Amino acid sequence: MMDEGEHVLIIGADAAGLKTAARLRRLKPELPITVLDRSDVISYAACGFPYYLSGDIDDFSELTRTAWGEDKTPQYFHDSKNIEVLTGWDAIRIERDPNQVIARNVDGMERPFPFTRLVLATGASPIKLSIPGSDCRLVSSFTRPEEVQALRLSLQKNEVGRVAVIGGGYIGLELCEAFAALWGVEVLLVEQRVRVMSANLDPEISRLVEDHLRSEGVDVRLQTTLKHIKCRDDELVLTLSEGEEQHVDRVVFCPGVLPNAQLAQDAGLTIGPKGGVQVDKHGRTSDLDVYAAGDCAELPDVAGTRLIPLGSIANRMGRVVANHIAGVPDPGIPKLFGTGVVKVFDLNVASTGLSAARARQRGLDVEEYWGCWTDRAHYYPEAQSIKIKVVRERHGQLLGMQAIGKGEVVRWVDAFAQILDLADGDPRALLRFEHAYAPPYATALDPLHHFGAMMETGDGWQIAPTMMLGGGNHDWTWIDLLADEEREPLELPEVRGKVLRMTTAELREKVDTLPKQDVYLFCARGPRSYECCRFLRQHGINARYLAGGIAFTLG
Amino acid sequence: MMDEGEHVLIIGADAAGLKTAARLRRLKPELPITVLDRSDVISYAACGFPYYLSGDIDDFSELTRTAWGEDKTPQYFHDSKNIEVLTGWDAIRIERDPNQVIARNVDGMERPFPFTRLVLATGASPIKLSIPGSDCRLVSSFTRPEEVQALRLSLQKNEVGRVAVIGGGYIGLELCEAFAALWGVEVLLVEQRVRVMSANLDPEISRLVEDHLRSEGVDVRLQTTLKHIKCRDDELVLTLSEGEEQHVDRVVFCPGVLPNAQLAQDAGLTIGPKGGVQVDKHGRTSDLDVYAAGDCAELPDVAGTRLIPLGSIANRMGRVVANHIAGVPDPGIPKLFGTGVVKVFDLNVASTGLSAARARQRGLDVEEYWGCWTDRAHYYPEAQSIKIKVVRERHGQLLGMQAIGKGEVVRWVDAFAQILDLADGDPRALLRFEHAYAPPYATALDPLHHFGAMMETGDGWQIAPTMMLGGGNHDWTWIDLLADEEREPLELPEVRGKVLRMTTAELREKVDTLPKQDVYLFCARGPRSYECCRFLRQHGINARYLAGGIAFTLG
Repeated sequence: MMDEGEHVLIIGADAAGLKTAARLRRLKPELPITVLDRSDVISYAACGFPYYLSGDIDDFSELTRTAWGEDKTPQYFHDSKNIEVLTGWDAIRIERDPNQVIARNVDGMERPFPFTRLVLATGASPIKLSIPGSDCRLVSSFTRPEEVQALRLSLQKNEVGRVAVIGGGYIGLELCEAFAALWGVEVLLVEQRVRVMSANLDPEISRLVEDHLRSEGVDVRLQTTLKHIKCRDDELVLTLSEGEEQHVDRVVFCPGVLPNAQLAQDAGLTIGPKGGVQVDKHGRTSDLDVYAAGDCAELPDVAGTRLIPLGSIANRMGRVVANHIAGVPDPGIPKLFGTGVVKVFDLNVASTGLSAARARQRGLDVEEYWGCWTDRAHYYPEAQSIKIKVVRERHGQLLGMQAIGKGEVVRWVDAFAQILDLADGDPRALLRFEHAYAPPYATALDPLHHFGAMMETGDGWQIAPTMMLGGGNHDWTWIDLLADEEREPLELPEVRGKVLRMTTAELREKVDTLPKQDVYLFCARGPRSYECCRFLRQHGINARYLAGGIAFTLG
Repeated sequence: MMDEGEHVLIIGADAAGLKTAARLRRLKPELPITVLDRSDVISYAACGFPYYLSGDIDDFSELTRTAWGEDKTPQYFHDSKNIEVLTGWDAIRIERDPNQVIARNVDGMERPFPFTRLVLATGASPIKLSIPGSDCRLVSSFTRPEEVQALRLSLQKNEVGRVAVIGGGYIGLELCEAFAALWGVEVLLVEQRVRVMSANLDPEISRLVEDHLRSEGVDVRLQTTLKHIKCRDDELVLTLSEGEEQHVDRVVFCPGVLPNAQLAQDAGLTIGPKGGVQVDKHGRTSDLDVYAAGDCAELPDVAGTRLIPLGSIANRMGRVVANHIAGVPDPGIPKLFGTGVVKVFDLNVASTGLSAARARQRGLDVEEYWGCWTDRAHYYPEAQSIKIKVVRERHGQLLGMQAIGKGEVVRWVDAFAQILDLADGDPRALLRFEHAYAPPYATALDPLHHFGAMMETGDGWQIAPTMMLGGGNHDWTWIDLLADEEREPLELPEVRGKVLRMTTAELREKVDTLPKQDVYLFCARGPRSYECCRFLRQHGINARYLAGGIAFTLG
């Protein structure tokens, strides 16, 4: 694929750009490779910013060093990897005939950088919100190192008693913990949508996250926009959509990011419907000499195209692009499912594939399943409750999983993502899952096995964990299978209809006395009511049970 | 499949037997099901015994209760699940025409139990070692509840200062921690083979386990047998194979288990080469009216047959057998890889598929790969080192993984097991792995991606982590890429040959001064020496690097 006289130019010296450069260098020791970056701080682990802010990471330089402690400066890349990184050069224009990129340095000097292959790794920038007052020095986003360092400094100087975080996505939620946990800062979280993490989670899972944020003292405002910021000395007065005023010391915008695609757009490259540089699975743009990788790229997806601004994907794409440039066979980036995880205080929230809400937006008819288990043997002291939702196309393939809990959740989401990929979402793969079992790590039967079993009966047996909160109907019969000791510490939701308390044994005896329909069973986590539901159905009663039990309902 | 007049008889009321019964009851509400067990304590979580002994679990009844606190007595199974469990009945003979099992109770009374379908879930028993003196009351195995309870009581009464654990498999290793960690008991571990966990691990991984046991104060004796036990009042004097005498307060035998297949064998059922009741993937024995499930069963395997005495598999088999009896379509137990995990103090040790040693025993030519990473972003405070080995058939399919470390290891072994199953061991699936990434949970590039990349270069680049301990040769050149601060706290193994210390930058400068062969690179964990290895090879030097770096070598 490569000719003599090749020269690869890469715009952007972070995950995607430098991974491309490093892989290319390994494959082609003599190839001229130049990397430009507008900033002086390169190759930083932006994913680690919240943990620097929180104090979990003491020294910012830990985010700009290799695992073995070397500073990832241009000098390091030159000396150790034979890669030229030129910082302070802002690429402003792509030109053809001859192929070159015009870049400008801090002094305003412009210079051409020739290329035979160009890789755009320009990243993404925070969505710009035009809110009056947002140019105040106490207002910032959370993207650039200097913003992060300034915020950390103001925390250390005790200048922040209350902060407003605008946006309830991954970063916004990480910042809630970062401000509150160690520094004790009061956090006001403002989210314009009806719920947090709406891109990845379904409403009943978002609700668990919101409840947890509130239990940690975060003031969560949904369906709320920030209208106006008034900057008074060292204080900010915010006007929210309802007209309410809020006083805070800092505002941090985390409204999500948009791909930096201007350079590509100006050069006439195809821009995808979501605003990224459209690429194929090898990272090629509409111009075959030009590639794009990382947050600026819009990837092919089963249902069109997709932006996945994650460090893991940026790294993988860098490798794929380098392989393609070097002519090394590579199947390209596979179908991606947007697998991700976020730590919200001590709650772990992970997801892969489509939520039911997303799937319905795409016009799919879906089945939804919920369950609540422990992440280890229930009798093991450190066992933690985990709540999992699985989405499936009706009578079809698995579509996605959401998992939430204080214990391990990533393992199941990773395993499920593999089923989506390697088994093409075949539900039969759930029962095949061969997990490593011992009481300190897992349960003898895995949640994936339970979901596999649930799917054999179909989704008509379960009611959603939030259903009980709706209160039901006057002609419904609720069967409460909780033991007295279990019920005691709970605040059960008030429901309409008749509530009968009984044991599973009593239920077997009293089956003939029960109504034939609108019977809703509940227990602590689901297994008892599932079993009783089956029993009642065998006796002609159209029963359903509360999925994930009271534990899922109450969060 | 089922006729009127069916009557299912199940021998054994633990995981496999009761799972079969419960699933069958759900499917067939009216079917007569009888479960016999020789013991009075049924349905106990034997996997939890070590954690009861250790004190992690306070009350033995936690192991015999449901997750919602009900005692799993025969009464519970009768009342809640409509299953008859008869305890104290020891099945002694299977008869045909008419089909019945003769069982004997504690009073010596014999009684026939008729069946149309029989399920053998008779479990496994410790391998019997005929060691003189082993009938002493201070000597026991660790299988039956009363043995476990007696040991715990003796710990509580402070009667045990020193214990000998005989056998270095899963249970033996769990017991080392159980005795030592909370109770402070000195442990002598006696293993007749050359290393611990030899069925699942390769020598260099076993070594890490042995080192860890020793660092926790366990006296590990390999290639050692217990010849004789002398019982003196409250003390035992052991004679080991070298003639050495050891004084201990208790001896616990954990020599592994053998399937309880006598009943089946006496009835003329086919017994597998490993001594279990041979079954097909639906659990059917050579007699189509008779099934076997759990530890007593010998399962079909790619290379013949296999015993997998794990609670997870027993549960899954119970479901499969019940489905087959009830005529519910079920693909049967899939190909199994023996995925497992054990906690050895604070070290997690997991594996799936074949070790290199096992694969070679089966006549396979294998490639071996090793790596050392952190289980989270390297800059995240709680990041722990993990060491992973992957085995592949030469130029062929993946065969197995072994993972060890103080952090998360199960996630990778589970994911690898899925690749073995869903992708039929295709190495290309490694690079496809889409993991949930955020700094508190994972690294941006996953260990599976790194293994995928390594396989593209082949196994000729690495030397085994233990290779350096062998000391090398006088004409070898070792290149030490460690930074001074890294080297400082280490005790590097002494090696023959020349040792050159340099940075990766210096190596690039000095490449022309290096010999053309027998160049061995090492660094802390591997990435630097991997990259330099590639660079040297591009310059005609036949270099190799220490897989997993000094971290893997030193453990």
